[in-house]
Amino acid sequence: MAFDSIETPYGSAERVLGGSASYFSLAASFFSPVQIVGVVGEDFPQDYIDIFAERGVALEGLRREKGETFHWRGRYHEDLNVRDTVELHLNVLVGFVPRIPESYRDAEYIFLGNIDPAMQMEVLSQLKRSRFVACDTMDHWIQQSGKELRKVLGRAEALLINDSEARLLSGEHNIVRAARSILKMGPKVVLIKRGEYGVLQFSDSSLFAVPAYPLEEVFDPTGAGDSFAGGFMGYLARTGDLSQRAFRRAIVYGSVVASFAVEDFGLKRILPLTLPEIEERYQRFIELTDFHT
Amino acid sequence: MAFDSIETPYGSAERVLGGSASYFSLAASFFSPVQIVGVVGEDFPQDYIDIFAERGVALEGLRREKGETFHWRGRYHEDLNVRDTVELHLNVLVGFVPRIPESYRDAEYIFLGNIDPAMQMEVLSQLKRSRFVACDTMDHWIQQSGKELRKVLGRAEALLINDSEARLLSGEHNIVRAARSILKMGPKVVLIKRGEYGVLQFSDSSLFAVPAYPLEEVFDPTGAGDSFAGGFMGYLARTGDLSQRAFRRAIVYGSVVASFAVEDFGLKRILPLTLPEIEERYQRFIELTDFHT
Repeated sequence: MAFDSIETPYGSAERVLGGSASYFSLAASFFSPVQIVGVVGEDFPQDYIDIFAERGVALEGLRREKGETFHWRGRYHEDLNVRDTVELHLNVLVGFVPRIPESYRDAEYIFLGNIDPAMQMEVLSQLKRSRFVACDTMDHWIQQSGKELRKVLGRAEALLINDSEARLLSGEHNIVRAARSILKMGPKVVLIKRGEYGVLQFSDSSLFAVPAYPLEEVFDPTGAGDSFAGGFMGYLARTGDLSQRAFRRAIVYGSVVASFAVEDFGLKRILPLTLPEIEERYQRFIELTDFHT
Repeated sequence: MAFDSIETPYGSAERVLGGSASYFSLAASFFSPVQIVGVVGEDFPQDYIDIFAERGVALEGLRREKGETFHWRGRYHEDLNVRDTVELHLNVLVGFVPRIPESYRDAEYIFLGNIDPAMQMEVLSQLKRSRFVACDTMDHWIQQSGKELRKVLGRAEALLINDSEARLLSGEHNIVRAARSILKMGPKVVLIKRGEYGVLQFSDSSLFAVPAYPLEEVFDPTGAGDSFAGGFMGYLARTGDLSQRAFRRAIVYGSVVASFAVEDFGLKRILPLTLPEIEERYQRFIELTDFHT
């Protein structure tokens, strides 16, 4: 959970609600019940808490600690695929050890957001019957905590990662080789996020590619990856189906939610979003990509 | 028609057969008869001429002039989407005015390769019953010959262009806005080539996206765009169908041929290619992209 201060060529937003858990849980909540584990500071407003409660997101695992909430300040280039981190205040995230409430321990679908791999392992050790574990990571952990990250990958069914991180993790420039190399580290599925170019899915037996929806207005890419992950995991959890067919549809639902997320600043477009709008854009993805039926 | 000298991180090739007309005509020849208009120098070997003759490519419009053949020397970065032109010798291309042989003048499907827009107009003025004109261009002509290029666009059904050129031509950074702006310049269809990320097709009534085939070995992107154009135009000419359905399939056939083109240096992979291999990879594109059937 975070405060994000965002600057893009199209405007800016100051200390708005953000963070991986926010985007993920709101995106997933369209499809399935969600339970958050995270930490906020004393400055985190009740209004923000209420947003999740209204969407039925379980908050028992959200702790409030002395101090300030994590705050990220970023600036996007004209090429929105490129961004600079201007400020990063970990605040209450320093020393945070996730504790999974008893009521969460039977969760089957687990998304490990982008934190220290040692903390991702800590989460896994507290779960009783996880069925499908997906994790995210970033360049910092790949470079600083490679050994711990490998342990997480040995336990995860899926890794969601962007293309430059996949190259860094594998040491392979070619993205197909990079994904094949990561598959050998443990995950059965590797999802390569390519921003405006869409998503590639690799497994031993299947290769799937879906473009991002071409949008006339992209205001703010913040949270696109976590919104994608939320739609993907939420759909899988709803159907309980882990077939290739279900994966592909889950990837498209994730892409649909992400395509809305980037249309306005922060969570502005996700908050009023409805399931019929999601279904309508899912149909548009079919029209966008179909050439053989 | 050109000699290409190519350096990539995976190797190099010296003065191999290249040029837009070579890639385009060989790619299109899998689907449909092709007639070349172009110029070579005295140094252009008969062996190269024979390659086209063996594939049934008509060469009446290929002139041999005093002097040397056009020669391009380029170097690709590790990111193969980026290349530098190291040498460019126009040679016999200087002062070249295309003359369309009488036997070509009834051609219905016309591809105007990337040359001076004034020469593209010259070609159009010599044709009697063109049905579908597609053209290519590049940053140089957009910047230096904008007025002539607009005339060509006013006469063309389709523009094939890469994403950075589309931005330059339209003055719009967002690719959807860029394409919509170019549609207003005349073409009914704009195809945005995005290299390893695939192709976007825009028209007033339709939006289509296809990813590039993810390849483990990409040796040399030279000619990918022209191979794409050849597959696209060849398929359209074969079917005679200009429906949206046919366009989409043509775009995938173009993507198939381009995916082979980049797997080896120059024309090395295109020359031994067979139609069954093309059809097999077309099926792989269906498997790659399908999520709803």
